[in-house]
Amino acid sequence: MEEACGVFGIYTQGGDIQAASAAYYGLFALQHRGQESAGIAAADGKVIRQYRNLGLVPEVFDDEILRGLTGHIAIGHVRYSTFGGKDVINAQPVVARCKMGMLALAHNGNLVNADALRAAMEDQGAIFQTTVDTEVILNLIARESSKGLLEAIRSMMQVVRGSYALVLLTKDSLIGIRDPYGIRPLCLGRVGDSFVLASESCALDAVGAEFVRDIRPGEIVTIDQSGVHSVHVPAPLGSRLCLFEFVYFARPDSVIDGVNVYQSRVEAGRRLAIGDDVQADMVIGVPDSALAAAMGYAQQSGIPYGDGLAKNRYVGRTFIQPNQGMREVGVRTKLNAMTRNVRGKRIVLVDDSIVRGTTSRRIVEMLRTAGAREVHVRVSSPMVLNACYFGIDIATSQELIGHGHSVEDICRFIGADSLKYLSLEDLCKTVEGAGCGLCTGCFDGRYPIDPETGEMLEG
Amino acid sequence: MEEACGVFGIYTQGGDIQAASAAYYGLFALQHRGQESAGIAAADGKVIRQYRNLGLVPEVFDDEILRGLTGHIAIGHVRYSTFGGKDVINAQPVVARCKMGMLALAHNGNLVNADALRAAMEDQGAIFQTTVDTEVILNLIARESSKGLLEAIRSMMQVVRGSYALVLLTKDSLIGIRDPYGIRPLCLGRVGDSFVLASESCALDAVGAEFVRDIRPGEIVTIDQSGVHSVHVPAPLGSRLCLFEFVYFARPDSVIDGVNVYQSRVEAGRRLAIGDDVQADMVIGVPDSALAAAMGYAQQSGIPYGDGLAKNRYVGRTFIQPNQGMREVGVRTKLNAMTRNVRGKRIVLVDDSIVRGTTSRRIVEMLRTAGAREVHVRVSSPMVLNACYFGIDIATSQELIGHGHSVEDICRFIGADSLKYLSLEDLCKTVEGAGCGLCTGCFDGRYPIDPETGEMLEG
Amino acid sequence: MEEACGVFGIYTQGGDIQAASAAYYGLFALQHRGQESAGIAAADGKVIRQYRNLGLVPEVFDDEILRGLTGHIAIGHVRYSTFGGKDVINAQPVVARCKMGMLALAHNGNLVNADALRAAMEDQGAIFQTTVDTEVILNLIARESSKGLLEAIRSMMQVVRGSYALVLLTKDSLIGIRDPYGIRPLCLGRVGDSFVLASESCALDAVGAEFVRDIRPGEIVTIDQSGVHSVHVPAPLGSRLCLFEFVYFARPDSVIDGVNVYQSRVEAGRRLAIGDDVQADMVIGVPDSALAAAMGYAQQSGIPYGDGLAKNRYVGRTFIQPNQGMREVGVRTKLNAMTRNVRGKRIVLVDDSIVRGTTSRRIVEMLRTAGAREVHVRVSSPMVLNACYFGIDIATSQELIGHGHSVEDICRFIGADSLKYLSLEDLCKTVEGAGCGLCTGCFDGRYPIDPETGEMLEG
Amino acid sequence: MEEACGVFGIYTQGGDIQAASAAYYGLFALQHRGQESAGIAAADGKVIRQYRNLGLVPEVFDDEILRGLTGHIAIGHVRYSTFGGKDVINAQPVVARCKMGMLALAHNGNLVNADALRAAMEDQGAIFQTTVDTEVILNLIARESSKGLLEAIRSMMQVVRGSYALVLLTKDSLIGIRDPYGIRPLCLGRVGDSFVLASESCALDAVGAEFVRDIRPGEIVTIDQSGVHSVHVPAPLGSRLCLFEFVYFARPDSVIDGVNVYQSRVEAGRRLAIGDDVQADMVIGVPDSALAAAMGYAQQSGIPYGDGLAKNRYVGRTFIQPNQGMREVGVRTKLNAMTRNVRGKRIVLVDDSIVRGTTSRRIVEMLRTAGAREVHVRVSSPMVLNACYFGIDIATSQELIGHGHSVEDICRFIGADSLKYLSLEDLCKTVEGAGCGLCTGCFDGRYPIDPETGEMLEG
Repeated sequence: MEEACGVFGIYTQGGDIQAASAAYYGLFALQHRGQESAGIAAADGKVIRQYRNLGLVPEVFDDEILRGLTGHIAIGHVRYSTFGGKDVINAQPVVARCKMGMLALAHNGNLVNADALRAAMEDQGAIFQTTVDTEVILNLIARESSKGLLEAIRSMMQVVRGSYALVLLTKDSLIGIRDPYGIRPLCLGRVGDSFVLASESCALDAVGAEFVRDIRPGEIVTIDQSGVHSVHVPAPLGSRLCLFEFVYFARPDSVIDGVNVYQSRVEAGRRLAIGDDVQADMVIGVPDSALAAAMGYAQQSGIPYGDGLAKNRYVGRTFIQPNQGMREVGVRTKLNAMTRNVRGKRIVLVDDSIVRGTTSRRIVEMLRTAGAREVHVRVSSPMVLNACYFGIDIATSQELIGHGHSVEDICRFIGADSLKYLSLEDLCKTVEGAGCGLCTGCFDGRYPIDPETGEMLEG
Repeated sequence: MEEACGVFGIYTQGGDIQAASAAYYGLFALQHRGQESAGIAAADGKVIRQYRNLGLVPEVFDDEILRGLTGHIAIGHVRYSTFGGKDVINAQPVVARCKMGMLALAHNGNLVNADALRAAMEDQGAIFQTTVDTEVILNLIARESSKGLLEAIRSMMQVVRGSYALVLLTKDSLIGIRDPYGIRPLCLGRVGDSFVLASESCALDAVGAEFVRDIRPGEIVTIDQSGVHSVHVPAPLGSRLCLFEFVYFARPDSVIDGVNVYQSRVEAGRRLAIGDDVQADMVIGVPDSALAAAMGYAQQSGIPYGDGLAKNRYVGRTFIQPNQGMREVGVRTKLNAMTRNVRGKRIVLVDDSIVRGTTSRRIVEMLRTAGAREVHVRVSSPMVLNACYFGIDIATSQELIGHGHSVEDICRFIGADSLKYLSLEDLCKTVEGAGCGLCTGCFDGRYPIDPETGEMLEG
Repeated sequence: MEEACGVFGIYTQGGDIQAASAAYYGLFALQHRGQESAGIAAADGKVIRQYRNLGLVPEVFDDEILRGLTGHIAIGHVRYSTFGGKDVINAQPVVARCKMGMLALAHNGNLVNADALRAAMEDQGAIFQTTVDTEVILNLIARESSKGLLEAIRSMMQVVRGSYALVLLTKDSLIGIRDPYGIRPLCLGRVGDSFVLASESCALDAVGAEFVRDIRPGEIVTIDQSGVHSVHVPAPLGSRLCLFEFVYFARPDSVIDGVNVYQSRVEAGRRLAIGDDVQADMVIGVPDSALAAAMGYAQQSGIPYGDGLAKNRYVGRTFIQPNQGMREVGVRTKLNAMTRNVRGKRIVLVDDSIVRGTTSRRIVEMLRTAGAREVHVRVSSPMVLNACYFGIDIATSQELIGHGHSVEDICRFIGADSLKYLSLEDLCKTVEGAGCGLCTGCFDGRYPIDPETGEMLEG
Repeated sequence: MEEACGVFGIYTQGGDIQAASAAYYGLFALQHRGQESAGIAAADGKVIRQYRNLGLVPEVFDDEILRGLTGHIAIGHVRYSTFGGKDVINAQPVVARCKMGMLALAHNGNLVNADALRAAMEDQGAIFQTTVDTEVILNLIARESSKGLLEAIRSMMQVVRGSYALVLLTKDSLIGIRDPYGIRPLCLGRVGDSFVLASESCALDAVGAEFVRDIRPGEIVTIDQSGVHSVHVPAPLGSRLCLFEFVYFARPDSVIDGVNVYQSRVEAGRRLAIGDDVQADMVIGVPDSALAAAMGYAQQSGIPYGDGLAKNRYVGRTFIQPNQGMREVGVRTKLNAMTRNVRGKRIVLVDDSIVRGTTSRRIVEMLRTAGAREVHVRVSSPMVLNACYFGIDIATSQELIGHGHSVEDICRFIGADSLKYLSLEDLCKTVEGAGCGLCTGCFDGRYPIDPETGEMLEG
């Protein structure tokens, strides 16, 4: 399960921050949102320069490249993609020349009507060189150049359907845009006289910026020499922030739409324990994302918290599985059961979600091999029943073990002694302070936008 | 602070395990012991083939290279070095031809009389192409070829002074050697009919092997077609396992000389809390190595455990600091304070050790910036007063903040509200079950071997 | 002086040739036409796949990449660019989706009205992601999709002004297009039932294809399952093949528009010698491009031919000049005077052209240092007086030593004892058999198309 | 057929030349002598630093690496090896610490008693980490450290049997050594107050140095602060320079032992034509090494010289042959017949040597396909009948087509209309001015040293 993207932008003033270097730090703080490619575009008031390549942020950029990205404004993007082979052509930001001059755009989210929009523009003679929605959005903006940039953006927002947190770079300004439902997060920060836009607040911290506020659903924020300007395109039917950001994707030290990600996870664990009368000796979590929920579960249940799984912190994109028969042997490469801690114990194993079920199955088996007497799996979110069409690559419906299987089936499949999920109602309560509504589509199928028709639905 | 090295060896029988691939998994599990270079040598009964290069294990090896390392026996090595520039010539295993045929050797540890031994051999016409002790050891063994390999190894052990856990590969056997004090760890495992040697038990887990036992101080274990044979060279004055393996270096899921690393850390935290009457709202640990101790402290003190620092899990060897003025800004790149968790709170911050003091200072400052009202630092080991001469690159004595400063001085330097260390007596109790004595040189200067003279001291 | 590009295309039938591999060989034979980037796109009747990167052909492609480019049709491109930094975004073929499906296009040449065309399309909302003309051409074709591909190409040819040899790939056909003046070469070959298009005939040889014929100026050749179809857009004012292809760019083993490149160079040397009464002991040529002309000069003049300059055959794109003061010392890195051959002799040094004069100056000096008594420079083409706007990166007018300097000035600048150029009249006679007229713009300013206005001029 | 190695050394004075950069240029001029690996070691009066890696000289070194190789003295090495896989461990110079301090050594040549010497030293406890003779030589020198460096070198020269041109670097001196037969070349040059040693004089030219003289067979030249000192170890039985250096290996612009390589090749061609009554229309040479001989043949015979084969000048180490069926098709990748030049003609094809016969066969076939009516092959050296044991990797005897086949057999195999070789007597006359005798072992089996016994034979 992988997040599609993270975006970052900075408009510097005063000269003590080099914009591209700040983008580098910011993107590195957002690395968990995309590990396939990274890119930065920078503007100096006249031209936009860019660099993007496949790889992690520190692999893509070196000092020489960053020095070449001169200018006081920069945007950046990290991406994970599963569509076809890896191709640098699909790396972002996408930079283009149009009637309004050079523009660079970075996008987090997914449009459900991109194909239709692309087809309509192709009918009128347009060509598309990438398969990313970003190119569609740029074309839509460019087509309304005569109205001026702001109106062109509003026009684009009238026709696209889906999720988008955008940072747009012109030769002398930085613009942040969040879709009318606010499905994907975007926030504003400030360091000195410089302003920062980022998918998550942890990227503000990385560049020493203070959190100012979240960009509102449907808001267009323009940052230029004269300051920060906002235009609000109200969400027609209520905002719908992606609930999965809290469950799994966002970094625990981020605050999204007023909700502390870490605290929401502890609370999910706590609620998961309420009314659960399982008899156990230790609560453990699957590292790293479920540790907070495990902590909450332990606090509420009174069952001691412990560590039962060690993670190899060097696991990354580049680890290869040798072709030879060692694959079976190498199962404990990423996670290893801490035998002495679990041996002879009845374990509550907290995970944040179950997608295909195969990883859970392997962990349960590993714990049993290590001597655990019982393994009770507790999931700090509801069953994932549906695919996501709004920027998270969960899986297709068919691959979801929740799709067409009962809790009992799943429990048997993963080999647990018992299995419980958090209810959607409880999960929603963990983010109660959120400044906007929630998209719960993957759990209950109630998408804000019909993925087939693009029709915008009731909030 | 970096561990010098990790070693791994496997003698396979039955053909379902490819030795070099197993070494790859084993080394990856030991990656935390050395990130500069990695190497594997494999023997097929006739010749030894090898590959080694700078980089992390998954960067150095690919499938094609592993396939080329044919043979049923393999050894491997990961290394971190601070001596001079990086140079692949110093990567291990070192492979050499000598009177006894081809040998490959991988070494974890440090000899204190290597220079003298090298000089003596140079007097007799030897040349040295690397700066690693491994080459010295190989020469010493080769010189006694006429006695046969086992006797040659014993002769070598008579003259070298220092720490060494060795895996030695001949064309048809695998040999494990641990120095008479057992300063560096080495253990034996078994999977099917195959035998494994590794610096830590977590590497046994990685290849599906069961832990059999620790190699004893002064033991030479030979594994060949006829099974496992052991020769014991008794430690003259009692065994002295490095205590710092438990404090910081070893992986929490390893068991060394009978002691569960994770449990010893929890226990250290627990003991640290006994008699500590600090008033606080939350106990947090510095990720990842001090989290277990923080947990133990919280359990004992009754102060709630919480997460206060988020670690960017993509931080690695390759992260560059751009030259521009962003360095100051980028302080929260590796660790970030979780503002909402710590704001307004009195924090007990547990760390495993303080070496130079600069990292602690930065973390304390970060927590205060994030709103912590008080920061009480608790260290789950005693003050580090002395350099290590036996394989751990701590720092020179002059760089150690413990060297010539009082606890009060250090407390002031790091900006904490209070500072306490665990006593050496308590720390030793956390590993009470250990099958051997302990080297506590970095804490109390009581080295097993005089680093100047090579004299072997009382246990 | 560098050629802009080379193009290649193959439509295979019968299955014994893998199209992408053939393109690899073909591009390698055209490597002299562009060393910055290389790319191949392949079609299998359904989709187009592509790969392109910076580097020489054998650096860009490996077996795995070629295997991934499945399909029976392929096109390829090699490119040299001087506009700004190297950027893979400008590598070709450009692949795009449009109303007619996927298209891939590779272009050799230069449009003089690309900016105007781009601006006009930007006015209508188009965006441009590269700075290459190929993207302009693709857009122009896509805009006329409703007419069908062939008519869309004809429409494009009505509006673009400049030189273009194009290979266009659809999902199931291969199309070759040569501009109405035929400024850049393009030829057709056949191997078995497969057809090949290439910038030069040497690329046909590389894949074992027989030369069939040159594509005619203004011709559109479509190759698909039903065979080879041709549509001829007659050149309005007579064809104008680039004369510089023969002087310097093309490979000596190529035949272009009926003229053997090698023979035309020998003939140029021969004509250069007619009426030249210089007294000399040896004729030498500047390797590699002027050796044929030197041979011709020697034959005609009766002065013995000899080798006086040795070329380091490993000189390539990657040779770095260390920063230190060695640059002066390293002057003989690429070419070295053969001292024993030239010492004490009166030398006729034949070069194919003089652009900036700096290279000639260095060679003359090197020969004198090696002991040459006299150095008479003979140039097998006329003075280059004007920049090229049609696809050859000679230099700007200002950089041309021929611009505003007399023969005497230049002779003095390069330090020769005498200097003579071939007349344009004579040069034209060396290619007398050519099937089309010639562009002589760089010599006499008579461009087929006004580079400012795009007006098409008299032949 | 590949030369084993090239060596270079420079002792700078005055500070205007950076020694490592000069070595870089010098090695690049010797690149034809070895393309597998390159290395440079530099000394600054105190320590020796080095860098070596697989690849061509410009691929191995960049500006940063060269800057790191500080010091006023440097040596370098290029290597081609066929023994087993490529391994950087076998790259040179080999740097070692011994009783006399740090030494770096680079070797061109081959010892016939290396195995025996290695075995003898292994008996005494030595280990060997590489398979190169250089390590053997360094050990032999180190063993006699007590005698001082010069005597230690003389002692080494007493026991080694084979060919060696050595450059040896100490912390403050540069030493050149040529074996007593002078089988491999080595010369001395001077630029300002700096002295240069190189395998061929073309490397002197590359750094702007004047040729001073060849190092004499058996000479040891020491260059240090006090100047150039020479000790001569007389060749016991007369000098024996490798004749194949002139035939094929050396660069045409080099002068070796007083003989101009280029002129010797022209002369070989000339002598080949004497008495040859073949009727033909054109003489062509196989590029690049046989062009001079073809020129000589044409001059003598009166048959016109022409170009019939074009070489792709981008062919290099990295060209891959795709796995697919294209191999047959790609035969004209490296060399292409110039069809218009050869069609209908009777051709004399001059090559410098025939080793396995397969390349000649392919070229003859290519010329026939291109329309040549007759192809008469003339070889500017005698039949190669025996393997080389002194540093040139020709082939094993069994692979040599000259081994056990008559001229008629070979003529039939390569498909020529006729075939003639130059006689050994004539070939020796082409280098008549050489300052020393010749090794003709590959032609007549008269090796200076018995390859089996190491016995030194009559001159």
